[in-house]
Amino acid sequence: MRNFTFQNPTKILFGKDQIAGIAREIPDGQRILLTCGGGSIRRNGVYDQVMAALAGREVLEFAGIEPNPTYETLMEAVRLVREQQVDFLLAVGGGSVIDGTKFIAAAAPFAGDPWAILAERAPIERALPLGAVLTLPATGSEMNCFAVVTRRASQDKMAFGHPLLYPRFAALDPTATFTLPPRQIGNGAVDAFAHVMEQYLTYPVNAPVQDRFAEGLLLTLIEEGPKALANPEDYDARANLMWCATLALNGLIGAGVPDDWTTHMIGHEITALHGLDHAQTLAIVLPNVLAARRERKREKLLQYAARVWGLSAGDENERIDAAIASTRAFFERMGVKTYLRDYGIGTDAVAPLLAQLERHGLTALGEHQDVDLATSRIILEASVAP
Amino acid sequence: MRNFTFQNPTKILFGKDQIAGIAREIPDGQRILLTCGGGSIRRNGVYDQVMAALAGREVLEFAGIEPNPTYETLMEAVRLVREQQVDFLLAVGGGSVIDGTKFIAAAAPFAGDPWAILAERAPIERALPLGAVLTLPATGSEMNCFAVVTRRASQDKMAFGHPLLYPRFAALDPTATFTLPPRQIGNGAVDAFAHVMEQYLTYPVNAPVQDRFAEGLLLTLIEEGPKALANPEDYDARANLMWCATLALNGLIGAGVPDDWTTHMIGHEITALHGLDHAQTLAIVLPNVLAARRERKREKLLQYAARVWGLSAGDENERIDAAIASTRAFFERMGVKTYLRDYGIGTDAVAPLLAQLERHGLTALGEHQDVDLATSRIILEASVAP
Repeated sequence: MRNFTFQNPTKILFGKDQIAGIAREIPDGQRILLTCGGGSIRRNGVYDQVMAALAGREVLEFAGIEPNPTYETLMEAVRLVREQQVDFLLAVGGGSVIDGTKFIAAAAPFAGDPWAILAERAPIERALPLGAVLTLPATGSEMNCFAVVTRRASQDKMAFGHPLLYPRFAALDPTATFTLPPRQIGNGAVDAFAHVMEQYLTYPVNAPVQDRFAEGLLLTLIEEGPKALANPEDYDARANLMWCATLALNGLIGAGVPDDWTTHMIGHEITALHGLDHAQTLAIVLPNVLAARRERKREKLLQYAARVWGLSAGDENERIDAAIASTRAFFERMGVKTYLRDYGIGTDAVAPLLAQLERHGLTALGEHQDVDLATSRIILEASVAP
Repeated sequence: MRNFTFQNPTKILFGKDQIAGIAREIPDGQRILLTCGGGSIRRNGVYDQVMAALAGREVLEFAGIEPNPTYETLMEAVRLVREQQVDFLLAVGGGSVIDGTKFIAAAAPFAGDPWAILAERAPIERALPLGAVLTLPATGSEMNCFAVVTRRASQDKMAFGHPLLYPRFAALDPTATFTLPPRQIGNGAVDAFAHVMEQYLTYPVNAPVQDRFAEGLLLTLIEEGPKALANPEDYDARANLMWCATLALNGLIGAGVPDDWTTHMIGHEITALHGLDHAQTLAIVLPNVLAARRERKREKLLQYAARVWGLSAGDENERIDAAIASTRAFFERMGVKTYLRDYGIGTDAVAPLLAQLERHGLTALGEHQDVDLATSRIILEASVAP
């Protein structure tokens, strides 16, 4: 096992009716800015629950944070926070709202152009405190200190993070997910699955607890994801999916082990250029990363085949092929198509995507920093069609 | 899954040479009290590493916190803390030192007789901050807010806890365990195993992630424990054992599921009356709790038999018997004897132990609160000898 530092101070309020408890988590007298997306929280009752919980408190609102939140939109919120002297940010929504709110939290007190937080990884010294009410199990943003923000003008999708950006609390009520469209549930399960794989499917470092925790999350996603899709009001399936998605990216399974993130880096470029959902890009890219890196990932691929998919027939290469095919089939079962062609994107998209990777300096990806543009080309070409 | 609240703010510094980083975690200008046990940290180099890390800082010392730390000893430290106006407590040792230091942290600023913290569960409103340097993987105290303290005068072993008592940080260097006697390693593995079982082996509530995390810890303890015993300088085995022990009782696997603790409650009385090591009492009692509660725990016992011990032969009762026998055999393999008779204790000990349970109001134990004194008698009688 590698050396590591692990700390995660976010307080999780998990279960039915837990939104009612959020007021206790926000200090009295603070001016709160509720941030949200396109309006779903007004239709599914979550907005009313939040406002009931905060009755008597001073609450401003900023709506309209989009999927793959943009710098342009978030800077409008930053202006509001500064003008209105907001003390506490409350993100109500999915990963995009929470990610965007982390940027607002860091940018509002930032001296200088906040774009530097993204483009130059300028050091964050202060941040507004934030909390989250999660409505979409997927990104894990509710229990980590990372975020991804897109600059619409330049089609840049950039990640950043800082320990000051852990949500102080996150309320996770599985019933808040009952009204999600199937596409969001499918995307969420794929996103969580890919997060686990980025930290698990690398090479062995004799870290059996981390491996088994990762496998436990994968097995549960495979088991509970389809149930959550089939029956939107299956509380336990939604609850298990939600807790999996949070634990998939809260730092625990990645502590002491190598991590990959090739799939995410390539996927970000697909979203930036073609507007696909984040999870759609992961479902397209991940199977081809596993295939292209099968030699470097051989030991873990065999472990994955055996422990997650129960594959024991055939020789090593056959078991690896079957594990990759099973991965793809799971994504398809969750309703997420796994080839660029399924989204109307052809071979001509490969060169511009490689140019984006090059422009962003993403020419040495993966746990060995050896996924160069030639390898990314192999991955992308295999991603177009079977 | 049940509703839950989960928060664990302890910062883990894990790995070789991590003790060097502790000074960064203690604010400048604080007067530090280093607390420790009987002197092993002076022989194994940990004391020197700690003092080197704290060079230039004001450090007082309080040595002599015993295994099963006593109120009497800890109150001497409380007097020292008050007299010397200590700001920060640094526990260097195993679970007993850390538990004892939590009591010192709560008792020093307590208004009134600190015994009330234990005996009357008097509310804790303030506590000194504490950090930990762990030398013995076992109790999980380094990453939780609970502690057990014994009052020597009255033979009472009492648990307490408060969120203010999470260590601010815990340095876990597996090399610090290389010089531990085999008995301590065996005890540590058994203690961690029992902690997992208290939270896992109850009844199903459709919480597959918690189950799989628990099973992952058990499988790893079974795999790595004997390696750690056989080769004291097997870094990975020691590291995996250490991380298992921490995760076994940091709140995560217990979030959203029922818990038992019958084994611990009965075990505490055995330690109080007969002075056995904590883990020895768990190794004695746990197999008999599983046997006595086999109907109430049937579903989880079958899951445990299948997933942890790979048992598929025989009917349900045979698989349960085999799982219990495997559990006992694991404890014995770790060098911890599993009957009272092995420690020179006979049937005449049962009645006084039941009287202790009654005196402490422990007459409705377990996940269903239905382990009465008659059931505890069955468990204790079965614990004397095969």
